[in-house]
Amino acid sequence: MTEASSTTPVTLSPNWNEQGLISVIAQEADTGEVLMLAWMNAEALELTLSSGEVVYWSRSRQALWRKGATSGNIQTLIDARLDCDGDALLLQVKQHGAGACHTGRRTCFFYKPNDGTWQLSEDG
Amino acid sequence: MTEASSTTPVTLSPNWNEQGLISVIAQEADTGEVLMLAWMNAEALELTLSSGEVVYWSRSRQALWRKGATSGNIQTLIDARLDCDGDALLLQVKQHGAGACHTGRRTCFFYKPNDGTWQLSEDG
Repeated sequence: MTEASSTTPVTLSPNWNEQGLISVIAQEADTGEVLMLAWMNAEALELTLSSGEVVYWSRSRQALWRKGATSGNIQTLIDARLDCDGDALLLQVKQHGAGACHTGRRTCFFYKPNDGTWQLSEDG
Repeated sequence: MTEASSTTPVTLSPNWNEQGLISVIAQEADTGEVLMLAWMNAEALELTLSSGEVVYWSRSRQALWRKGATSGNIQTLIDARLDCDGDALLLQVKQHGAGACHTGRRTCFFYKPNDGTWQLSEDG
């Protein structure tokens, strides 16, 4: 697909959705484990890149969400990549404390498909 | 956070957004590389789980999107996990062909931050 590649722009800006947000995937830099999916607005992204600690936008609270501010389970930013159409961000992070999930688990992804339902799985 | 963990439901259903969609992360099962972020509706999810080949929902075309149907770059489903609030899905896949991205690259995440802009990076 050389033709397609040759038209890829050299720089890209975040493609904010109608709520001014982009999707953000946090991946543990050391292990590759995907920890969580959350959202950022422009301010959260700027704060994350400038401070090196991950700040999301909480859609439920409609407020900046300094990850780990109350739990201590902060995420240190290691690296970031924006995707080809600018509406998703992949972060490499170092997850501190117990984990990324509000349940105390390392990752938020712990329900596995089983006969048409999604069941709690403790294998990660 | 034992208290929070103890209230985690044993089964969960996808928490479709107002467009009837959930976010879907595709991760290469062998390497842990995050390939893309896309969306599924209920039909796409059902087709993916029943067929073992990943089917997304294209928001731009408003149609089912059988990944790789034209390019041959299909994704075979290895495993799936729904997240703690049911609005995001993590897939372990085997990516066939050149890659997941429409530009021909392996991953869609290839713009890195550089002095306030996002620049094309060929390191992945």
